[in-house]
Formats: sequence, C-alpha cells, structure tokens
Amino acid sequence: MLTYSFTNLGSESLYQHLYKCIKNDILQGVLAVGEKLPSKRSFAKNLGISTITVENAYAQLISEGYLYSIPKKGFFVADCNLQISNSHNGKLPEITTDNLHLTTQNSTYFVDFSSNQTDLENFPFSIWAKLIRELLHENRLELLTNPPSGGILPLRKAIASHLLAFRGMHVLPEQIIIGAGTEYLYGLLIQLLGNDKHYGVEDPGYKKVSQIYKSHGVSCHFLSMDDCGVQISELENSHTDVVHISPSHHFPTGRIMPISRRYELLGWASKSPDHYIIEDDYDSEFRLTGKPIPTLQSIDMSEKVIYMNTFTKSLASTIRISYMVLPRDLLQSFYEKLSFYSCTVSNFEQFTLAHFISQGHFEKHINRMRNFYHHKRDILLTTMKKSPLWDYITISEEDAGLHFLMKVDTSLPDDVFCLRAGEQGIHITSLSQYYQTPPEDSQGIFLVNYSSVPEDRMKEAVEKLYNIYLKK
Amino acid sequence: MLTYSFTNLGSESLYQHLYKCIKNDILQGVLAVGEKLPSKRSFAKNLGISTITVENAYAQLISEGYLYSIPKKGFFVADCNLQISNSHNGKLPEITTDNLHLTTQNSTYFVDFSSNQTDLENFPFSIWAKLIRELLHENRLELLTNPPSGGILPLRKAIASHLLAFRGMHVLPEQIIIGAGTEYLYGLLIQLLGNDKHYGVEDPGYKKVSQIYKSHGVSCHFLSMDDCGVQISELENSHTDVVHISPSHHFPTGRIMPISRRYELLGWASKSPDHYIIEDDYDSEFRLTGKPIPTLQSIDMSEKVIYMNTFTKSLASTIRISYMVLPRDLLQSFYEKLSFYSCTVSNFEQFTLAHFISQGHFEKHINRMRNFYHHKRDILLTTMKKSPLWDYITISEEDAGLHFLMKVDTSLPDDVFCLRAGEQGIHITSLSQYYQTPPEDSQGIFLVNYSSVPEDRMKEAVEKLYNIYLKK
Repeated sequence: MLTYSFTNLGSESLYQHLYKCIKNDILQGVLAVGEKLPSKRSFAKNLGISTITVENAYAQLISEGYLYSIPKKGFFVADCNLQISNSHNGKLPEITTDNLHLTTQNSTYFVDFSSNQTDLENFPFSIWAKLIRELLHENRLELLTNPPSGGILPLRKAIASHLLAFRGMHVLPEQIIIGAGTEYLYGLLIQLLGNDKHYGVEDPGYKKVSQIYKSHGVSCHFLSMDDCGVQISELENSHTDVVHISPSHHFPTGRIMPISRRYELLGWASKSPDHYIIEDDYDSEFRLTGKPIPTLQSIDMSEKVIYMNTFTKSLASTIRISYMVLPRDLLQSFYEKLSFYSCTVSNFEQFTLAHFISQGHFEKHINRMRNFYHHKRDILLTTMKKSPLWDYITISEEDAGLHFLMKVDTSLPDDVFCLRAGEQGIHITSLSQYYQTPPEDSQGIFLVNYSSVPEDRMKEAVEKLYNIYLKK
Repeated sequence: MLTYSFTNLGSESLYQHLYKCIKNDILQGVLAVGEKLPSKRSFAKNLGISTITVENAYAQLISEGYLYSIPKKGFFVADCNLQISNSHNGKLPEITTDNLHLTTQNSTYFVDFSSNQTDLENFPFSIWAKLIRELLHENRLELLTNPPSGGILPLRKAIASHLLAFRGMHVLPEQIIIGAGTEYLYGLLIQLLGNDKHYGVEDPGYKKVSQIYKSHGVSCHFLSMDDCGVQISELENSHTDVVHISPSHHFPTGRIMPISRRYELLGWASKSPDHYIIEDDYDSEFRLTGKPIPTLQSIDMSEKVIYMNTFTKSLASTIRISYMVLPRDLLQSFYEKLSFYSCTVSNFEQFTLAHFISQGHFEKHINRMRNFYHHKRDILLTTMKKSPLWDYITISEEDAGLHFLMKVDTSLPDDVFCLRAGEQGIHITSLSQYYQTPPEDSQGIFLVNYSSVPEDRMKEAVEKLYNIYLKK
C-alpha cells in the first residue's frame, strides 16, 4: 500500500502534508490515471493517522480535480491532462524587471518647473486627521454602506453648494458624478457618449487628454487654435462631435476663451444631438488676479456642456477625487447605461471631503493656497527681475493658474535648451512640446510651473537658467 | 456719460458691482458692439470711485471678452455673438430628477440574500484609525508624493508577500497593478489587450463582467459551461481571444475548475499570442472547508494568466482597492502604453492598506472573517434544518464563498418566487437570472448570500421563505 513519511513536517498539518504527497505522486506519474487509492480507513491505519485526516486530504484533492470518487467503489486518480502540462518543460521562466521603465515620477531634479505636485507644507493635515477620526468613530454605518454609482449624496451636495457660491453654477447634486480622477471620468464619458463619436482636442494641449482617447481606440482630432481658442470651421471640417476644451485657462498657453467664441461654440453644439462640449475647469480656483472667469456651463441654455473639475489640483495630487456635471439628457442616459458601475472613490475619503467642504475648510484652504501661490509667483518674478536674465526674457500669462510662460531671447533650439537645463538639475518644458506641429512663433517659449518649487531654491534656479542662456 | 448707482451694494465690492453693471448693459444691448467706453480716469471721477476700481472692472471684462482695448485709443465693446446667445430664449430649462432612478443601493429589505455588503461589526475600525493617524503624523512626504501608475511600492510588496504566503504565487511587486476596483481594472485590460479582441465570459456568470465589456463596445461572447467550467471547443468555435473566468469558485454555481480543465485551458492559451486568461479570484479567502484552491496563475508556465483579486470582498465593499498581476510580456506593454495614467487609488488608503497587510493585521482579519462567516453559515443552516422548510429544500456549494445554493421543491416560476419573497421583505435572486438562456435544470434554485444577514433575523427570514413555499 501507498506509504508516506510524516517526519519533518515543519509547520504543515498532517492533512496538508498528505495532500501534497499524493498530489506530487499524481503530477510525477507515480500514481497513474484511473489508479485506485486505498480506502480512507485502511490508509489511515497504515499511516498511523486518523481517518478524518485522510478524508480531508481526499476531499481537497477531489475539489481540485486530482481525484474523483465513485460511491461504494472508492477514490481514483483523475486524468489531469498532464501531457499538456508537460509540453511546457515545467520550468517557470525567470522574471526580471531589468528592462522595464518603472518610473516612480519622483523628481530627482534640483528644481522641477514641470511638476504639478502639490506643496507639502500646505496640505491641511491636522483638519483632515480630525475629520477622519470623527468619521471612524461616529459614522461607521455610512462608511460601510455602498454608495450610489455617482458618489455619496453629502459630497455631491457639498460640491453643488460650492459651485453655486464660487462659480455661480446652478446644478443639482444628482447631476454631479464623482470619480477617481478626471482620467477615469474621461473613460466613463467615452462609454456614455459612444466610442463611434469623433473627439476633438486642443492643439497645443494637455497631452494626457489625447492619450486617453487614443488608448480607448476612439477617433481623436487635434484642433489648432487661434487667439480665442478652437475654431468653429475646424470643428466642422473635422466632423468633430465632442470637443474637449479648457476655456477658462487653456493649458499650456494660459489663454481665456472670450465670450464671443463661447457663444459660437454653444451655437455649434446646438446644431446636432451628437455635439457636446467637455469643459475642463482644472485650475479655475487659482486665478491670482481679478474674479474667476465664469464657466461655459453657466451660460449653456441648451444642455450641451459637460463640466469637469478635480480636487487633485486644489487639495492634493495624491488624493484622487474629481467630478463631472452632466446635462439633464445625458444624466438619464448615464443612470440607464452606467449606474451599474461602483463608485471608484472610497467612502472614507468621500465623507472626509464632504465634511471638509461643508464645514468651510475647503474655502479657507483655497484662499490660503491662492495667496500662497500668489506670493510664490511674486517671489519668483522678483528673483528673475533682479537677475541679468531679465533682459533676455518676456513673461506672460502670469495671472492665472500655477504656471506662466517665459519667452527667452535665445537661438538655442527648444530641445537643446531643455536638455541643458536638465544637465543643471532644472526640469523645464517648452511650449512647442505641447503642439502636434509646433508653429514658428512657439519657439523659445518655456512653461514655468512654480507650484512645487521651494522658495529657497529660486535664486539658484534662476542663475542656472541664466547660465543656459549664456551658452546660446 | 455712462452712470451707475453704487448704493445697495450688499456684499459686492465696488469693482464687482461695476463689472456686473457694464456686463449687463452689453448683454442687454444697451452698450452696442464697437461703442467706446469712458476713459478710466474720467469714468472714475464721474462715478466718485478710484481709477483702480475702474481698471479692475475693465481688466476683468477684457479677460472674459466683453471689451477690447486699443492702445492710446481706449476701451470698446466687443462682438459677443449675442445673436447666437439670444437664439436660446435666455431661460435655462428647469432641471428635475423626478424620472431618474437615482438608486442608492441602500437595501430597504428585512433581509437581503443578494447583497455583498460587508458586515459592519467586523471592519477593523480601531486598527485602521490607528494606522491612518500614524501616517498623517509621520509619513507626510510619502502621502503627498505622486505614486507610480501601478501603485505605491510598499503596497505592491505587501501584496506580493501575501500572495506567496497564502496562494503560493511567486510574483514580483512590479507585476502587481493597483486600481480603484476590479471594474476599473477590466477597463484598463481592454486598453492593454486591445478592443479588437474577442472576449469570452462564463454563462452563467457575474453580470457586471459582460456589462463592462459591452459598455466598452468590445466583442463579448457568452460561453456555456459543463461541470468543469468553460469548454475548449466553445472557446475555439467562438474565436475567443481572452477568456474571463473564476476557476477557484465560480459565481454563482460555486463550481471549482478541476486540474484537468485548467491544463486544457492553459494549452488553449499557449496556442496563440493573442490568447489570454483572466483569472478572477474574487473570494478565494473565504473557502470555509479545506485549503484554498491553488490559483491557475501558479501553474501557468507560459505567461498567459492575468490574475485579479480585490480587497472589496475581504476588507470592505466601500474601500475601492483591487489589483491585477500581469505576466511579463504584458507588463512591458503596460508600462509602455498605459503608465501615463495616474494610479486611481489615493495614496492615503494605499499606505494604510500596505501597513495593514505588512503588520499582519490582514491575515488576522481574514482568519477572523472566515470564522465569522463559517459560524454565520452554520447558524443559518441550523435554523433552516429546524424549520419545516427543510423537507422541501436541498442545499449545495456551502463550503466556499459567502453564498450557497438552495434548491426549492416548488412549482412556482423563479420570478414569482422572488417577487413573493420581495413582498415579504426578503431580497433573493434565482440561479436562472445569471444565465443568458436558463436551462431547465436551473429552475427552482436560489442564491443565499448570508454575509450581511443579521443573526437575529435569520429565524424570521426562514419562516418567511417557508410561507412563500406554502403559497406554491
């Protein structure tokens, strides 16, 4: 009869050991297909273990398909298709990640003028900690109750109130759909509007937007811009159905779409039931001078604007909460087609943010951050003015968002300038990088995002920029 | 000269008020296109306000495109395309949500045998709170540092160690991709494998899987199952490229795919570079009897299995953290094509979970939950045995996962049975609901998910089930 040794078990239980011994013998062919195994009782007696132990091992082997039982006849070795398994030579290929670019996005630069990372000192850690602590003590049931697909109602209500107070937008909480980042919401929108539609994106523009459309395999055109933004004639010629824009602060040029072009766009949108405008309002909180620019959504009479915004800019880039505001007809279609999806943001963070907004902390935080960035921008500009570099650069679009444009009077090609900057520990991108085909007049213009640049490194960073300029 | 009243300002600043007055006059046509506005200085004098106030109002109106300036000539009313804006009659349609099914998924049933909601009493609130508190005090820099697309390395390392210890799987942390729920990861996989591929799902099966493929507009076949799972002949006839299965505990039948079919499937997968197997291991932690079933991934020699699992079952359905393990060749392609995406899970929760696993809390939690569900299942079965209902039902597949099957000896059609249950406050689903075309022998079988059923309601719930049976 089959016999196994039960010495040197280690941490294994008797039943695990027996299971493994029999399985190995089947896999090695020691026990052949169809071979009958000893009865539980006699096997147990022979091995000096209990019948229950044998029973458990047999049960596990049956579950996994190594054995089968015939009532009143006994247990038999199943056909495990070992000929297929042996056709691979039984060795797992060695896995390495040597050649993979597993970038962590952790900047190793002295100064990174391209980073959107939020500033460490400004995250409201103590309030956030207090709100979470309260929730974990007092709102346990809500925390564990599955939310609607669009997000928990308290957060959607808080956002609706915020939009009314700060953007003059009248929207119902039900129109607001919460998601784990705008990138995720773009994917949802493609499912909602249809992957047979033609999407149009701004050129120049935020690269990820077109990457996402392409990654989803939908048709995506680049629309060139004049001083007012995308042009209606281009929309019509390219048969664009859905146009994706940032009218209040275009990235990277910083342009604001004037009211005339806004009305033209709304006119274009109302011409076809397939036409929609996605308004990406990603950094409207950070207009440093004057009032916030009113949204396109707020003058949309024909329910054609899908408004999007995110807390990744205003709160922390590592807390993934964004939202979109759907017009009424799309809302019905969203609930019919897509509400089977679970909301992608954890309840814990949805409730924390809801309380953060409704208790007034968000407003204070935004005001504090606006002042903080305003101050930071001023320090950087003052540093530049004091440097000899100032005579060779022109600054523009410095009143909004967290970056401005710096035109450098240099004959260095953009890529060489950026490369030399990199050698000095300065990460900087050129405007031309954001174009499909950069026009002549985009040359020599660079984006200076100062949001994550420490004040005490600004002087040295500007000196380094000047050094690059000198090498022209 | 243009004159406005500055009484009754309310909370408005002077500049905001002036901005609004001029904007209104432009929108109303009181100020015509091309009309010249007063100079800043004379306008200020006339209104009795400072020049700066007028300057700020003009600057804002220029930003928004209502005015334009010509150097040394002055400020003029821009063409705002009002003819287009007036073609909508200027009234926003009233928004209501009366007809929308804004279901919150909050069950109003006395007992819900269909819910996957995790149990309130069992979430480790105090440990979770302690870990978050520590992080918010001690790991601020890490919390605000943008993670790699696949998730923070400490969490991926913790999961890799867990998979080795509990599933015998040898995987590198870099092969693990973290996402906000498996539903999101399915969408990523479509982008990775291609939306031109033919996807195959189990019939019967978890409905959301096919919904997600269809929502992405990709070709999706239903594959009928025999006792061992999906059949190779069906895969071949339907030209399936990617098959989506749950071999260790099929939903809803509870079947385990035997080792023979597993090898057959791996053989099928190795026949074409386009073939892949998605192994959804969604509730493998909750096998109540015997050892966990080994994963298909762990016997895959040819790098064809994409393993997926989630913490939404094992921790809380409202914390959205899932992961997938990519084979090596796909990993390279993932990093090339999709690593531009930001990780969808907040750093705060990724770090909390990483510490929860690496400090051993997850293992303890799983063991506690397994015992808890084991006990709960036993109580429910004992309650059933004591009821007269017992003579008319047969229970099966009760050893794994958080549900079992109950075959009822009734002539009531399944939908009528479920409807009557609903009238009694019992939410229950039938096996036939999970089929595309339910076979005859699926009739009269119901899914009993006991994970969220309170013990003190079990007796009454079983009585109610018996009442429905009596009405046959």
